[in-house]
Amino acid sequence: MIKQTTGRVFAAFVFAWLIVASPLAAAQDPLPSWNDVASKRAIVAFVARVTKAGTPDFVPVPQRIATFDNDGTLWVEQPIYTQFAFAFDRIKLLAPGHPEWKTTEPFASLLDGNVEKALAGGEEAVVQAIAATHAGMTTESFERIAREWVRTKRDPRFKRPYATLVYQPMLELLNYLRANGFKTFIVSGGGVEFMRAFAEETYGIPPEQVIGSSGKLKYQMRGDVPEILKMAAIDFVDDKDGKVIGIQKAIGRRPIAAFGNSDGDLQMLEWTAAGKGARLALLVHHDDATREWAYDRTSHIGKLDKALDVATSKKWVIVSMKDDWNTILPKQ
Amino acid sequence: MIKQTTGRVFAAFVFAWLIVASPLAAAQDPLPSWNDVASKRAIVAFVARVTKAGTPDFVPVPQRIATFDNDGTLWVEQPIYTQFAFAFDRIKLLAPGHPEWKTTEPFASLLDGNVEKALAGGEEAVVQAIAATHAGMTTESFERIAREWVRTKRDPRFKRPYATLVYQPMLELLNYLRANGFKTFIVSGGGVEFMRAFAEETYGIPPEQVIGSSGKLKYQMRGDVPEILKMAAIDFVDDKDGKVIGIQKAIGRRPIAAFGNSDGDLQMLEWTAAGKGARLALLVHHDDATREWAYDRTSHIGKLDKALDVATSKKWVIVSMKDDWNTILPKQ
Repeated sequence: MIKQTTGRVFAAFVFAWLIVASPLAAAQDPLPSWNDVASKRAIVAFVARVTKAGTPDFVPVPQRIATFDNDGTLWVEQPIYTQFAFAFDRIKLLAPGHPEWKTTEPFASLLDGNVEKALAGGEEAVVQAIAATHAGMTTESFERIAREWVRTKRDPRFKRPYATLVYQPMLELLNYLRANGFKTFIVSGGGVEFMRAFAEETYGIPPEQVIGSSGKLKYQMRGDVPEILKMAAIDFVDDKDGKVIGIQKAIGRRPIAAFGNSDGDLQMLEWTAAGKGARLALLVHHDDATREWAYDRTSHIGKLDKALDVATSKKWVIVSMKDDWNTILPKQ
Repeated sequence: MIKQTTGRVFAAFVFAWLIVASPLAAAQDPLPSWNDVASKRAIVAFVARVTKAGTPDFVPVPQRIATFDNDGTLWVEQPIYTQFAFAFDRIKLLAPGHPEWKTTEPFASLLDGNVEKALAGGEEAVVQAIAATHAGMTTESFERIAREWVRTKRDPRFKRPYATLVYQPMLELLNYLRANGFKTFIVSGGGVEFMRAFAEETYGIPPEQVIGSSGKLKYQMRGDVPEILKMAAIDFVDDKDGKVIGIQKAIGRRPIAAFGNSDGDLQMLEWTAAGKGARLALLVHHDDATREWAYDRTSHIGKLDKALDVATSKKWVIVSMKDDWNTILPKQ
């Protein structure tokens, strides 16, 4: 699956990921990037409880469902969602064929490089613009474009490919859960086909375990070749209540563990935590401006306000990136 | 998962299923209920091709996706879809609370036991009625009701619980594919939550691998308890083109093998067969009125007309239940 053209950086990243996935490393300390603090202990204690046969909290393997938000939980979401950066690149690329964009918002501001002004008109308008740039092609073409972009395009701050802007402690956590019989799912507001383009090689999560927002699709014949066309209309928004609905539609079973970082994840955590037996609800708190970003109650992207209050009052696990993680990004 | 109250018949069925699943039996002949004819040979040859490492047709395990229609492909669909029988029982049960049904079609005909008259107004009206009887409760309540009904309610002809009206050769095929690294999915016009209520214990297919038609859902708090409520509105119809869309939405990867029995499966088979490399597209042809049912081009339920022509011209595998299967239903 990994093209030779992708270059050394990505190969190094995959290598780092393989080390984490090795059974030997897992036997020593499955979560080496986590400091030995309350959050790590809560995770390990939860896994021990649900995997110990013959105890009241034991959960059979098929019911060990863990759901992860993506933006801000598995990878960096600042200064703007990565999918926005991808869409803005698409808009620039497609602009010559759309002269009307020069005078239409949010396209005009985006073409000027003024993301803030584009977002000032509301996130909804930008999402519609994204849907437009993702449509009018087959699902297979889109997947190729998105995969290549995520592997090669570098972000402005860390100067590394977006596919490597993932949290090393969360990669370890994904592997740790899977090694203990969990099935790991992404449940994110991001576009499902955008995330599927990299989730398997980046997180080890196959496309059928990625749940996200989606546009309408159309099945059609081009000559005698069938294809699936992406349409500009939005079909499903996998955020807030939508995350619980998305879980029910795609999984049909309540998770026993859920991981998020923003108010958009509140309902997913609430639904997970309200089930019978041992449950793990965890929030990643971005409080490390030096190594990553610090934001919560007033952030435009990844706002964490109400969910922080609920997590505190319900004693969910809150991870301080600053204090709980000794490593943030994988080594390159 | 199996309640003691379910009775001996169901236990015997599960036991039969376990025998099929045992590695020893599989080593001898993984498909003992299939006669040694062209269809069986085509299946075995296909599996050999895609699992042989180092050959051009080799398919890595994560891409070994197989999709199965349910009604008429995995279990009996005559004289009416099982879910219709379930819904008609629900209508009778709920009728005292709905005096208006006595004078509203298709409810009035259904309450009279006149299914034919109810269906004469069009399948659409009946589907709407079904949606009504499936709504207004939580997904968890619905699952309990549906599971209990499928395990205990007996069909009029074979006098056995609907959960046992499955095709033994297809159970063997599911196990055979899984033993060879395939992930097996149901992709059916049936209601996704109805099918999930029995798919895991009947077919060994977990809820997250069941794709079907669905009603709208609502996430809400009852006091401080979150719940998912089933609404009467239809959200998605997983039939014809919808099967391909359903596959893309839920799996995000093209199957390499697909199994159906009616025109509603044509697009799924077409989409599967059009992929690169070795592919298996298979139709079950109901031509055994003695042991099951015989129907195709003019049937109201499970009509097989255009797909039979396409399958013939494209040389897809067509299974004659009469000639190719030495056993139809599992022993009780």
